[in-house]
Amino acid sequence: MSQDFAKRLNELPEGWLQAMGITITRATQDEVRAELTVGPEHLQGYGIVHGGVHCGLIESLASIGAALVALPRNQSVVGLENNTSFVRAVRAGAKLHAVSTPITRGRRTQVWEARVLDDQERLVATGRVRLLCLDQEQELAGEQVRGVLHPPT
Amino acid sequence: MSQDFAKRLNELPEGWLQAMGITITRATQDEVRAELTVGPEHLQGYGIVHGGVHCGLIESLASIGAALVALPRNQSVVGLENNTSFVRAVRAGAKLHAVSTPITRGRRTQVWEARVLDDQERLVATGRVRLLCLDQEQELAGEQVRGVLHPPT
Amino acid sequence: MSQDFAKRLNELPEGWLQAMGITITRATQDEVRAELTVGPEHLQGYGIVHGGVHCGLIESLASIGAALVALPRNQSVVGLENNTSFVRAVRAGAKLHAVSTPITRGRRTQVWEARVLDDQERLVATGRVRLLCLDQEQELAGEQVRGVLHPPT
Amino acid sequence: MSQDFAKRLNELPEGWLQAMGITITRATQDEVRAELTVGPEHLQGYGIVHGGVHCGLIESLASIGAALVALPRNQSVVGLENNTSFVRAVRAGAKLHAVSTPITRGRRTQVWEARVLDDQERLVATGRVRLLCLDQEQELAGEQVRGVLHPPT
Repeated sequence: MSQDFAKRLNELPEGWLQAMGITITRATQDEVRAELTVGPEHLQGYGIVHGGVHCGLIESLASIGAALVALPRNQSVVGLENNTSFVRAVRAGAKLHAVSTPITRGRRTQVWEARVLDDQERLVATGRVRLLCLDQEQELAGEQVRGVLHPPT
Repeated sequence: MSQDFAKRLNELPEGWLQAMGITITRATQDEVRAELTVGPEHLQGYGIVHGGVHCGLIESLASIGAALVALPRNQSVVGLENNTSFVRAVRAGAKLHAVSTPITRGRRTQVWEARVLDDQERLVATGRVRLLCLDQEQELAGEQVRGVLHPPT
Repeated sequence: MSQDFAKRLNELPEGWLQAMGITITRATQDEVRAELTVGPEHLQGYGIVHGGVHCGLIESLASIGAALVALPRNQSVVGLENNTSFVRAVRAGAKLHAVSTPITRGRRTQVWEARVLDDQERLVATGRVRLLCLDQEQELAGEQVRGVLHPPT
Repeated sequence: MSQDFAKRLNELPEGWLQAMGITITRATQDEVRAELTVGPEHLQGYGIVHGGVHCGLIESLASIGAALVALPRNQSVVGLENNTSFVRAVRAGAKLHAVSTPITRGRRTQVWEARVLDDQERLVATGRVRLLCLDQEQELAGEQVRGVLHPPT
């Protein structure tokens, strides 16, 4: 499933991952991985990678992992909380990769942690994401949710 | 200063704010504001706004406010921690705005909070960012930091 | 309800609030307040108030408020996430008070924020707590939960 | 140093650790451990362990580890941020232990993470603490800080 699912995510025509040039390299119920090369679209006003890129990368990996756990239960997931610690400043041209693993995969909520590393395996940022598991009939934002991450109807 | 500084930020040729289509509408030492219209580049796999967009928007406003406080002290700032709570799912086409205000503006660290709201003033996300204040001679990522947000040398 | 409920909480024979000498001064669905005088049981090894006291005070007020919202829905609540920022160090003898207000009071989750202040109204700590709402029949820790904060059976 | 330092902390006549019946079982620059048996002083109104106990335990271990790293540098540390995720409800009588390890031990800030586990090694709570490193001459709360965790003058 891992390569298939990562491939499907990477082939989506548009979205935040695409806008940020992030490639999912592994997506299973136990681990999700991604990589990116830092370009101008990742920088803030001081010329280093914007904290929101790290938060978002961590959010993405945690959400994909949690969604894969939720899928066979006919559930989808929605992020509740994201807390991210920034450890090392990174500049344009750097290659980053990230890995996320589960802390708890409950039926009501899940928690996944993720780390962002540079190409020397130095820690750049780390965070945890808490997600709520929604049963299929539950609505989100006023209409039933539907997308690549959803269980088929 | 407010309009000038916001204008300078918005006219930067590139960066995360530009990639995300975010316009800074006010930037002072007491309040920073921004707005955006949700497009495909903001969405995750379920078709709603990616949590990383909210985290990043909150991170941007807090950092700009803290940098404006740091500037006359010949300091720059670097984000340490970002914690964001997601309250309401948002879909493409929605107009969002955000506002950040200081919780503490110490000489060693600052804390700013920020809220993201939809065009009916309903809360979409809220978070706090902790930032470290660096004196001008301090280095970041192996070289002295320099950018639109820095004090002039 | 406010004074009644606060009274019931304060008259509990034992618990963390009692161990910490915390008095609930107001408890409604819109606001919860408490106060304490800093004694030796609140201090860490440097002689200032232990961060865990602030986290716990914030957790208490948020949980009481959320429980009061949950009660008429035949729900109880359980804390998912607590994030607290420390702003000002406090020493023994100081009088602190705290106030919590809701950010969202959804049927599935709630978020409450709280501030801890000293007797000059200076901010000492601030945080947010995310809580999960449980319907009455749901179990926690292997048996059905029951206590002063629960809906009557 | 580990056993010596843990012993000194446990023999302090008073403080939050004592009020909570927490015993430090290991204290080094690489790992800090503690244990406790859940009693009435740890419970909230639903009869389970109060989230503040977990936050505080995590805060304690992180702070002790960071203080041990700071000591030979003639620095002390102060907590900036604590974020804790609650994973499993725990009742009176349970035996808990906790372990904290460093994420980054920088000269300006440190980040430590910690996990609380029950006697079946199931995860109960996990969190991260960010701490600011203060050089010896820096003041805290209006007077120079001094305590068991400080470098000698």
